[in-house]
Amino acid sequence: MNKSPAWIWYPGDFEIYHHLLLNTRREEREYQWPAFWRLDDCYHNVRFRKQVHCDIPEEMTVYAHGTGHVWVDGKKHAFLQPINLSSGNHEIVICVARTDGLPCIYADGNQSASNSSWEANDYSFEWLPAGCSGLYPNKEDDPNIFAFQYEEMKPVSVKKREDGILYDYGKETFAALMFEHVQAPKDIRIFYGESIDEALDTEHSILIDAVPAGSEKYYCPPRAFRYLFIQGAGTEQYALTALYEYLQLNRRGSFSCSDERINRIWKTAEYTFRLNSREFYLDGIKRDRWVWSGDAYQSYLINNYLYFDADITKRTIVALRGKDPIVTHINTILDYSFYWIISIHAYYQATKDIDFIAFIYPRMKSMMDYCISLTDQDGFIRGREGDWVFIDWAEMDKTGAVCAEQMLLAESLKAAWACGELLGVGEMCYLERYNGLKKQITELYWDDERGAYIDSFESGQRSITRHANIFALLWGYADAEQRESIIMNVLTNDAVPKISTPYFKFYELEVMCNIGRLEDVTKQIQGYWGGMLELEATTFWEEYDPAVAGLDRYGMYGDRYGKSLCHAWGASPIYLLGRYYLGVYPTAAGYDSFVVEPQLGGLEWIKGSVPVNGGTVFVELKQEALDVVSDKDGGLVRINGQEYPLLKDIPFRLSLK
Amino acid sequence: MNKSPAWIWYPGDFEIYHHLLLNTRREEREYQWPAFWRLDDCYHNVRFRKQVHCDIPEEMTVYAHGTGHVWVDGKKHAFLQPINLSSGNHEIVICVARTDGLPCIYADGNQSASNSSWEANDYSFEWLPAGCSGLYPNKEDDPNIFAFQYEEMKPVSVKKREDGILYDYGKETFAALMFEHVQAPKDIRIFYGESIDEALDTEHSILIDAVPAGSEKYYCPPRAFRYLFIQGAGTEQYALTALYEYLQLNRRGSFSCSDERINRIWKTAEYTFRLNSREFYLDGIKRDRWVWSGDAYQSYLINNYLYFDADITKRTIVALRGKDPIVTHINTILDYSFYWIISIHAYYQATKDIDFIAFIYPRMKSMMDYCISLTDQDGFIRGREGDWVFIDWAEMDKTGAVCAEQMLLAESLKAAWACGELLGVGEMCYLERYNGLKKQITELYWDDERGAYIDSFESGQRSITRHANIFALLWGYADAEQRESIIMNVLTNDAVPKISTPYFKFYELEVMCNIGRLEDVTKQIQGYWGGMLELEATTFWEEYDPAVAGLDRYGMYGDRYGKSLCHAWGASPIYLLGRYYLGVYPTAAGYDSFVVEPQLGGLEWIKGSVPVNGGTVFVELKQEALDVVSDKDGGLVRINGQEYPLLKDIPFRLSLK
Repeated sequence: MNKSPAWIWYPGDFEIYHHLLLNTRREEREYQWPAFWRLDDCYHNVRFRKQVHCDIPEEMTVYAHGTGHVWVDGKKHAFLQPINLSSGNHEIVICVARTDGLPCIYADGNQSASNSSWEANDYSFEWLPAGCSGLYPNKEDDPNIFAFQYEEMKPVSVKKREDGILYDYGKETFAALMFEHVQAPKDIRIFYGESIDEALDTEHSILIDAVPAGSEKYYCPPRAFRYLFIQGAGTEQYALTALYEYLQLNRRGSFSCSDERINRIWKTAEYTFRLNSREFYLDGIKRDRWVWSGDAYQSYLINNYLYFDADITKRTIVALRGKDPIVTHINTILDYSFYWIISIHAYYQATKDIDFIAFIYPRMKSMMDYCISLTDQDGFIRGREGDWVFIDWAEMDKTGAVCAEQMLLAESLKAAWACGELLGVGEMCYLERYNGLKKQITELYWDDERGAYIDSFESGQRSITRHANIFALLWGYADAEQRESIIMNVLTNDAVPKISTPYFKFYELEVMCNIGRLEDVTKQIQGYWGGMLELEATTFWEEYDPAVAGLDRYGMYGDRYGKSLCHAWGASPIYLLGRYYLGVYPTAAGYDSFVVEPQLGGLEWIKGSVPVNGGTVFVELKQEALDVVSDKDGGLVRINGQEYPLLKDIPFRLSLK
Repeated sequence: MNKSPAWIWYPGDFEIYHHLLLNTRREEREYQWPAFWRLDDCYHNVRFRKQVHCDIPEEMTVYAHGTGHVWVDGKKHAFLQPINLSSGNHEIVICVARTDGLPCIYADGNQSASNSSWEANDYSFEWLPAGCSGLYPNKEDDPNIFAFQYEEMKPVSVKKREDGILYDYGKETFAALMFEHVQAPKDIRIFYGESIDEALDTEHSILIDAVPAGSEKYYCPPRAFRYLFIQGAGTEQYALTALYEYLQLNRRGSFSCSDERINRIWKTAEYTFRLNSREFYLDGIKRDRWVWSGDAYQSYLINNYLYFDADITKRTIVALRGKDPIVTHINTILDYSFYWIISIHAYYQATKDIDFIAFIYPRMKSMMDYCISLTDQDGFIRGREGDWVFIDWAEMDKTGAVCAEQMLLAESLKAAWACGELLGVGEMCYLERYNGLKKQITELYWDDERGAYIDSFESGQRSITRHANIFALLWGYADAEQRESIIMNVLTNDAVPKISTPYFKFYELEVMCNIGRLEDVTKQIQGYWGGMLELEATTFWEEYDPAVAGLDRYGMYGDRYGKSLCHAWGASPIYLLGRYYLGVYPTAAGYDSFVVEPQLGGLEWIKGSVPVNGGTVFVELKQEALDVVSDKDGGLVRINGQEYPLLKDIPFRLSLK
């Protein structure tokens, strides 16, 4: 057991508290725009306990963010004062309250050191393992402040213009501006831009600020931008430092190939994803800077091929769930509750982290039960007035019970049952519902004549879109015959409206990979993501339509610069290239066994690395040979219909001549 | 409808937020002692809406404590900037988030003025009438800071002693000390004392503080004391101002009589109660300064005969309940959940405030359902491990299902049913449970041989204490024969252990009044409360035992000065004298009808006033005559077995010669 002390808190509350902070930071010119869903908060009055055994006497000093006291063997002590613990057993209870933030403590001692071996309690009957994070190992730390790092950034150009000064930092970034020694006669005005157009359009740029005249030191909150336009002062009238704010992340995945454009795409995707990987997986760093469950689900998958950072994934899952009682769907979106449930089992498949399953399962079960409580007598779920039935920004018949939602519900039931089973408390009723629902989905939504799943049956429209059919292929809602039918009648049928969002393109391209159309996927990556690079994107956008030109490229949601130009879901090539080109994926939880099944997808050569839960697999595939090496056991190389065991640290080489 | 603007918030959140603050303020020398139950918090992300109709164009400016924006007819505006509303209808929605306090807004306008006609929402599906209070009518106000008033207090003596300076403020008070122009060479140390002994006992006084040397201005948090002992500086080295912190309250009840001692008791009780009537009804102003449901229940009753301040009662009820999910009993005490439920119906009986019932009923119902979920198959409730089965600080057989708890449960079921009925949603199952439980209580706890209720039946001890028997008389769990039996075998039986706490003495004395033993009650008031006055008490104590002398008087809970010398429940003579001597009580909700049934209780004359929900009744009873006048209709004078209608503003006089 790790004996070094760390800050501890009520489990899940660190995440929920920072989620609250994050979701209230969105700005739009003169006002802020808090998220439009319920934001929960940490508990403000908690206690921690441990039965400590000291082999030799030791001194314990308790630090706290909050007020309270320490009980040792029934006697109260103050924080900050050393407490002598004699050798033997001690019952230690630490009570701490903080009304304006996260109450947390740090017990500096040896056997008495605070860490996740302590238990935490919210004054209910339940004691849980205390929350803890590697981010806060020092007594000087404060978990109320997220442990970002900062690095000074220099602009690549500073240009004086008639009406102000334009800074270009060379690429999209997220930074806090620090102004010092301001000698301007009046307030300095700052206009941020992800694009040069936005920075210069002082009437419409979304992020703005004003530095008070005469400030000796003024910090702007960190914001997303590439360009700054500054009015009201000459460069000699202030000192400006831009501090890049970031989370330290270890890149574990890599990719390169014979196509330089794809290599640039991968790198740009990586940078896009890095900027959005912070307290949680954000949707975009300018807008909304909120956490959306459906977006985050894709980020979890991308993460598995890039950082394999279990911590952000767990933080995001915990934050999205919030606390009881559940009063709406996650992000108000029906489908987003389901992605949340599904993501937990997916997380387990990647990490085999049973401790997290044990922690989250009660919250998962209550979320599942909430969804079940909203099903109708037929077992289908329908959106209530006020529920957002999203699926995608696409025309779709959303009357009553929508097919794609039922598939998500069914997958959720399966995931919730499976997670319960891992803990020995699997709910048979979930499994039964899953089986029944799956059958009913086929009965009611499968259109034999048209050979595809229809959107909804209640309106009588029987319209077909790609969405439910993509899910059907991804999750096994189609037998062999139906698969072929869907591929022919939907996926490769130009008469069915195209997927227009990168969000759903994630699933479409995954299905394309699944059905062996990698060369088409290669072309789409080259075209769609390559198209953004041609427009000098330094990060990938929320949405991109090659047909739109000029300023219109930046607009969305009725706002001239409403589009986010650094959007996490734009990073999906990382997932696709790792999962289907390098071809690495788990076949047992935690990559206890995994497959390496590389494919060129029309490229001349590919190479790269994929993290596999504590290990890394290196893959290099050329026309003439395949090289694979893994520092983890359990691998199986599959190529050209053959399978080869992959032994730890033993390079595998196969000539393909 | 009141058109003047006021601050508004999510209903109940003002109370819950200040309850959080209050419950984390208890101090004990070097450390703080947050309450040992779950403390809920306000929602931090809320919105308000109203459909506003403007006859003529008007300007609306929104002020907020928090960040957010204003939607008018689908267009966003910033706070603090005037918004023009044309004549006609406008859909206004105001979104506000505040992560470290209570988000609230103030819309300054005419038709658009914010007040309780707006609705509030926590991003669930439910919109409720916004919370609002007369305490915050100005845009400069901040509902995050409780609206106390302050008044400078002068000490009655300042004495230099060998080791410091002793201040005596003449009576118990609650005040913030302000030190100015501190010129002492080192920190000034302050020792507070409710008693002179505590102030001078610098090793043990519970409240202490230190003013940093050289402070230009230093505020100590407001605390309870009568004496201050100051070390480390001469009076010339600092300027000290004591600021009495109080809530403005209108005294509506009064009492005087032929016994000067009782008059002093009434006045001291009034001052004791005033000091404890703040954000909520406190137990005591020094310790714990927490809100205890059972204590508060008595305060509600006292309040009805003193201030008739519905607001504090409502604030206290809302604060005690907190938010869902319920995880423990209120204050962790089984009985205190029941007092909470019962208090709501009692509040309605006094005020006929159906709006409050409509607001609180869902929280009342979930509390009732929580309690029901804890009953066993026999319908009885038993304490779980970790539940506190209190009833009173008294020896009692608390094995399994305790009789007094079942009576409280039954009364709760009746109250919850009745409140539901008021709203047309009465739960028949509560009424059925009540009827069944009442029958079962008699069957299982009534001991025919001993002519009394036993504490518990499960241990086989069949022991008898006063508590359940007092409840039986108060709430009708005894028929005529059983009543006589209880009076003889328990109430007037010295072999049954005496009630030793003022807390339960409240109910005992009420029963004594009920059974016509007013003269005994008069003697008890004179003896018990008069005894404290003889010891120069300026407020009434948490507990008093005439047999204890010296320093031991101040000790409790193992602490030398652990006893609270200003405890709300010490104010019960106000209730007893108003309810049974002046004899005024409602016979229909809201005093739509009420009785005036004065009794001398052995005194030569009594006179006083009793608030009757918007009106006041003046009563003067002498041996020779009764005078009554009421400014409210619905009264009935009852004396010497006769009844006389009491007409509004028509003095009633009856000669008793």
